[in-house]
Amino acid sequence: MQNDTNDIIIALSTPPGLGAIGVIRLTGMGSITLVNNYFYGVDLSTKAGNTVHFGKIKDTNGQILDECLATIFRAPKSYTKQDVVEISCHGSPYIIKSIINLFINVGARQAGPGEFTLRAFLSGQMDLAQAEAVADLIASDSAGSHALAIKQMRGGFSDEIKALRQELIDFASLIELELDFGEEDVEFADRNKLMDLVTKIQVVIKRLQDSFLLGNVIKQGVSTVIAGRPNAGKSTLLNALVNEQRAIVSDIAGTTRDTIEEHLNIKGVQFRLIDTAGIRAAQNKIEQMGIEKTMAEMKVATVVIYVFDVLTSTPTDLQQDVSNFLAASSTLTADSKKIFVANKMDLNPYTKPEDYYIEGLIGKENMIPVSALNKMNIEHLKDTLYQLVIGAPELGDQSIVSNIRHQDALGQAYTALDIVYQGLSTDGVTGDLVALDIRQALYHLGLITGEVSTDDLLESIFTRFCIGK
Amino acid sequence: MQNDTNDIIIALSTPPGLGAIGVIRLTGMGSITLVNNYFYGVDLSTKAGNTVHFGKIKDTNGQILDECLATIFRAPKSYTKQDVVEISCHGSPYIIKSIINLFINVGARQAGPGEFTLRAFLSGQMDLAQAEAVADLIASDSAGSHALAIKQMRGGFSDEIKALRQELIDFASLIELELDFGEEDVEFADRNKLMDLVTKIQVVIKRLQDSFLLGNVIKQGVSTVIAGRPNAGKSTLLNALVNEQRAIVSDIAGTTRDTIEEHLNIKGVQFRLIDTAGIRAAQNKIEQMGIEKTMAEMKVATVVIYVFDVLTSTPTDLQQDVSNFLAASSTLTADSKKIFVANKMDLNPYTKPEDYYIEGLIGKENMIPVSALNKMNIEHLKDTLYQLVIGAPELGDQSIVSNIRHQDALGQAYTALDIVYQGLSTDGVTGDLVALDIRQALYHLGLITGEVSTDDLLESIFTRFCIGK
Repeated sequence: MQNDTNDIIIALSTPPGLGAIGVIRLTGMGSITLVNNYFYGVDLSTKAGNTVHFGKIKDTNGQILDECLATIFRAPKSYTKQDVVEISCHGSPYIIKSIINLFINVGARQAGPGEFTLRAFLSGQMDLAQAEAVADLIASDSAGSHALAIKQMRGGFSDEIKALRQELIDFASLIELELDFGEEDVEFADRNKLMDLVTKIQVVIKRLQDSFLLGNVIKQGVSTVIAGRPNAGKSTLLNALVNEQRAIVSDIAGTTRDTIEEHLNIKGVQFRLIDTAGIRAAQNKIEQMGIEKTMAEMKVATVVIYVFDVLTSTPTDLQQDVSNFLAASSTLTADSKKIFVANKMDLNPYTKPEDYYIEGLIGKENMIPVSALNKMNIEHLKDTLYQLVIGAPELGDQSIVSNIRHQDALGQAYTALDIVYQGLSTDGVTGDLVALDIRQALYHLGLITGEVSTDDLLESIFTRFCIGK
Repeated sequence: MQNDTNDIIIALSTPPGLGAIGVIRLTGMGSITLVNNYFYGVDLSTKAGNTVHFGKIKDTNGQILDECLATIFRAPKSYTKQDVVEISCHGSPYIIKSIINLFINVGARQAGPGEFTLRAFLSGQMDLAQAEAVADLIASDSAGSHALAIKQMRGGFSDEIKALRQELIDFASLIELELDFGEEDVEFADRNKLMDLVTKIQVVIKRLQDSFLLGNVIKQGVSTVIAGRPNAGKSTLLNALVNEQRAIVSDIAGTTRDTIEEHLNIKGVQFRLIDTAGIRAAQNKIEQMGIEKTMAEMKVATVVIYVFDVLTSTPTDLQQDVSNFLAASSTLTADSKKIFVANKMDLNPYTKPEDYYIEGLIGKENMIPVSALNKMNIEHLKDTLYQLVIGAPELGDQSIVSNIRHQDALGQAYTALDIVYQGLSTDGVTGDLVALDIRQALYHLGLITGEVSTDDLLESIFTRFCIGK
């Protein structure tokens, strides 16, 4: 990892391969001059920032490599806050390679992954959480994950963390000031106010931690297992939800053996629907393996949709299923959300769904009567899925943590604050010990936004970026 | 094909896929205003051309799609001579799709392949041969094909063709003027001068046609067949030329059965080296098939390198090979260049290469003594290969035709001029007939630069472009 920002780095910023244009980016002190030495048509050194110029790039032998556009950004008005040049050339891998080689031969260095964004972070253009959001943004593949990344890139909860951290720093300074007075027993820092602050910060941290489940499912997609007895209509339901013939359906029980996964986008959130083998007392070894796999999927799912067939399953049967399969798969005790789908309502229209309710587990809010075959009530099922997982109709302005590194740091900070609080409420714990514990909390909060960082941390973050970003 | 240039077109101009950045291009009257309606941060409509601006793009619901840079080019100072906007956004396929969809929903149209360059052609920014060179440039994969494309993009022989065509037009106008005078028997156009002009143009066309062999091999690569008896050391020579262990070699005659192809770059020109099965009276059916394949390759090769082994092949043997294999494969009568390689010189150092010369076929200039195993004299062989095909040490300023469409049009124009010349030298051929024949020649010359074009022609040219170019 190059934390040195004094040299000039270069990389292709657009995806590799043939294309209409390719964009090569350079940054670093002197990068405009470097490009200008091989750019003919316009004297870039005399031009203002944020302007674009047409010219030819010639190599050291005077051979034309390409006719291209050079866009210059002058420090500090650029992505990295250093001089930046973007060369927009014809999208030929041969030309791109030639231009990059030219500038490497005359002093630039091939940029590492994420090194432009690393410089943006090191120059104070963005904090670490924002830098991480850039990578999330590029990887985003649904409206939900995209909105989340945009929000975080624009500041997200960074500002909140920074403000709280600053308050904590101020207190720590007061306590450390006391230490300078040694034996004099002065107290600049009001212990009660500090305890209030610790509690206040812990409340915020708790709220952010709680948002992680939501943030994580929005970013990674919501794993949604469709389970139920054989022939309950699970595959038909999957097909109805994604509105195509994805899974093979037949009226032969046990048609689906392997799990089948499909993506369903509800209001911008990806649900990964997993159709499973039907659960019953297994007839043979292969079926037994399929059932075990289903049980395992149910255990880790975010949502379990349990499908039963109102034609053949009585309320007693459902109760039995619940105690047999849901209990055996630990689904009843897991964090997963549960939806019960009463299927084949078209074949038994006089069924009363409420007959199937189970106190504390199945009620109006999570029992949906449908006909998968006729696509009856499928939209209501989708709404329920979304409501159950995402809750509010809009993501709104709430702060959401979606990065596991942030979640870990929040946990560490919370624990450190616990210790601070204990120290404050215990007689005889001296100011220097409290100050040390506060520093510990500050350290973990600072890791989130990068006010504290280590080379290892930066390396682990930025090497996951694309080259050229 | 859309020859309509009044609407706004949009396309991704960088290769698809994840990347640091993606560039979306729009052109057409009103394109800056269109983007400005959804661009927040700067009022693009007030900004000068060739400037870059940071801002957010929001969709019709006010949701931020991305933070990006918008570069504006104002007509006529742009690639298409129309207003152009280039949006440089984060390289996420999701974001790129969202931005393109936004602008398509509010009035832009997805651009067809090459449609930006088509507009550049239709607006007179470049002629047709130059537009074709843009596609060649993007596809170029060697210094030779790259230099050729750059040269053609910068005008190439277009200017020469245009000037000659203009002279011909002037004559045609004079002759057509005579026709207006009907029966009066005036002669404005000097027949002798016209015959001189026709001859002059034919000389230029001939020179351009002759350059096509060179232009084509530079663009497509030079097919170079390595042939010879079994165990002459052909595969060892291939390995020595490309400097790696590409072909399996052994001292068992007939090790190579399938043809093996490798690329060798000499001074920027690609040579496609084709190692073949050894030629001799076949021992069995499989070998016979291999030998027939070799013969077929030799027939169509640009260069044949015939390898013989000075240890086991006497001058008489070589003479026999020449009459047996080279003659049988039509190689002796084909246009191909021939190089004879006397191999294994290290094992028989007292061999005199001149003993193997054959008057009019093999001499100092095309007989290279080498040791493929020890890589002795391999560089000299490479120089000879290059000299033989490319001739001059540098491509220099000569006009080179590399496009088969141009070559065809030149041929048609030449034939039409033959007819003009015949008409002029034959008594009784009237001015109106001569004028008609001249128009025919003008038509074919005009097709090269696009002064004459048809929808079909444009379609066949531009649909081979990338989208976004």
